[in-house]
Amino acid sequence: MATIKDVAERAGVSVATVSRMMNKPDVVKPQTVKKIQKAMKELNYYPDVMARALQTKRSGIIGLIVPRISYGLFARIADAVEDACCQHGFRLMICHSEYEEQREMDMVALLKANKVDGMLICSYVGDPEKYNALDLPIVAIDREMERIPSVTCDNVTGGALAAQELIAAGCRHPLIVTYPVPAYMPLHGRLAGFQKTIAEAQLTCSQVEIDTFRPQAARELADFLRAHPEVDGFFMNGDHMAAQLTQQTRAEGLPLLDQLPVVSFDGLDLSGFLDMTTIAQPIEDMGRYAVEILLQKIEGKAVPIRSTLEVKCIRRGSTSNRSNH
Amino acid sequence: MATIKDVAERAGVSVATVSRMMNKPDVVKPQTVKKIQKAMKELNYYPDVMARALQTKRSGIIGLIVPRISYGLFARIADAVEDACCQHGFRLMICHSEYEEQREMDMVALLKANKVDGMLICSYVGDPEKYNALDLPIVAIDREMERIPSVTCDNVTGGALAAQELIAAGCRHPLIVTYPVPAYMPLHGRLAGFQKTIAEAQLTCSQVEIDTFRPQAARELADFLRAHPEVDGFFMNGDHMAAQLTQQTRAEGLPLLDQLPVVSFDGLDLSGFLDMTTIAQPIEDMGRYAVEILLQKIEGKAVPIRSTLEVKCIRRGSTSNRSNH
Repeated sequence: MATIKDVAERAGVSVATVSRMMNKPDVVKPQTVKKIQKAMKELNYYPDVMARALQTKRSGIIGLIVPRISYGLFARIADAVEDACCQHGFRLMICHSEYEEQREMDMVALLKANKVDGMLICSYVGDPEKYNALDLPIVAIDREMERIPSVTCDNVTGGALAAQELIAAGCRHPLIVTYPVPAYMPLHGRLAGFQKTIAEAQLTCSQVEIDTFRPQAARELADFLRAHPEVDGFFMNGDHMAAQLTQQTRAEGLPLLDQLPVVSFDGLDLSGFLDMTTIAQPIEDMGRYAVEILLQKIEGKAVPIRSTLEVKCIRRGSTSNRSNH
Repeated sequence: MATIKDVAERAGVSVATVSRMMNKPDVVKPQTVKKIQKAMKELNYYPDVMARALQTKRSGIIGLIVPRISYGLFARIADAVEDACCQHGFRLMICHSEYEEQREMDMVALLKANKVDGMLICSYVGDPEKYNALDLPIVAIDREMERIPSVTCDNVTGGALAAQELIAAGCRHPLIVTYPVPAYMPLHGRLAGFQKTIAEAQLTCSQVEIDTFRPQAARELADFLRAHPEVDGFFMNGDHMAAQLTQQTRAEGLPLLDQLPVVSFDGLDLSGFLDMTTIAQPIEDMGRYAVEILLQKIEGKAVPIRSTLEVKCIRRGSTSNRSNH
């Protein structure tokens, strides 16, 4: 691999000039900067990041904590964050929290020990106080935590759009299917927006918490529906959950989600594969904004504490072909 | 955060002993090691990784290059690799290659500049010679490259199982639907296994290359089928591709993949959501083995150049409910 000496030779300058250019580019003549950058590019030269980190007290590494990478929404967020990091010359270190608070705090400590310049958190658990105590720039994605800047979608409007879509499909008593979540999850706004819109239309709705990672999930839903025959549509709190429950109910010979109107949330490719109407979060924008806000925070600038991005409804067969009218 | 001094105090030993324990644990008494480890755990202490890396010439970081994290198979591989890294005390740095050779080589250089101890490659492009020239431990996952250890599934058997499944569903002339791939992709073994089994049953098959990321993919498949009315089943070269093409053909009003028997490949959750028979790769095991082989290579040990893991057929509605018998 090329060294700083190779770059200096190729650019026709001294090693000291190359070094100065990397640490304080503003004190080097613009045409010299250009010459050196050209030489670096031609030689595929990347500075020794670790040595530089000790010099500049910056590692150029951003940490990202997700429950699991492969869980639909987080894979897309990771994609977006990696793209944005790369564009700004940062590297991405990814850790799993596995939905366990202790593991999450271990990962936070590990990332801090690795001298990340900042952290992005899409975690499920964890005490906001512990993050505030870290003395490290942090931005939360799809979560709201006290005194930590967050980037979320407009969950309240998303819930309202979902309700409107089900009402338009003829539903008079939809069921919200969700999972148990801590209070700081922005999901609560989603449910509030949904319920408000249903009430304004002088309709009613029910709510059930189902853990689709348990094998009896389909049975639990079937039992609930037997006891509540008034349910005539579903608002599923996430595409992945909707996909799991669709599969589980079919396997049990109770294709409940194939018969009534369904609106899901997130806007993953998955919802398209299943022809399911969904409220799409602007996932790529959320990842990009989160990185940009984090980089501003790393530079000590003031940043917005709450960034709420627009959602949209993608209408598909699960509402347009199953009208209750 | 806790310092090495806090750990020493809590464990009742000197700072020098803690330092010795971290760098050469075998020269410290086992009971002292235990005492120090207990203190570290209680204090949530992680050594300053970067300073240690300069001392030991190791960063404790593994690099992973994937085309995109969110593309089905790679998200699951990333999960498995992160789990294994974490278990062995390594951190994971992830980069996208975006299916572009230049970007891939940039990411390789970047990871090397970040002093990763080794690299895992699940990339789509790239010249094996360039990897061999790197002087860095590398293991390929789901790829075979000259002189680089690889971990793949048993693609030949996988192809054979797919053919057997379609034959059992009554197919007499299945169509292989694949995408253009470079010669070093292990996918070729998959096709060879499929074709051999079809030939042994004295049947015939066709093959078509379709890029499902282009909007006209569904039309191309429809055109091919019009010209080849003998086609009576599909072997899809990947669950994600199968899901995309199922959606695209439905959207065009040509639900081709819903009518004939279909066998896919990979074994992602996606195939279950779509009730699609698939040949499942042991993705979690592949990720774990790749990390273990890489760690052995980092330690200078001899490692197997080819590790081929077992596949299995998961039978679902796309073959069991659409028999051609």
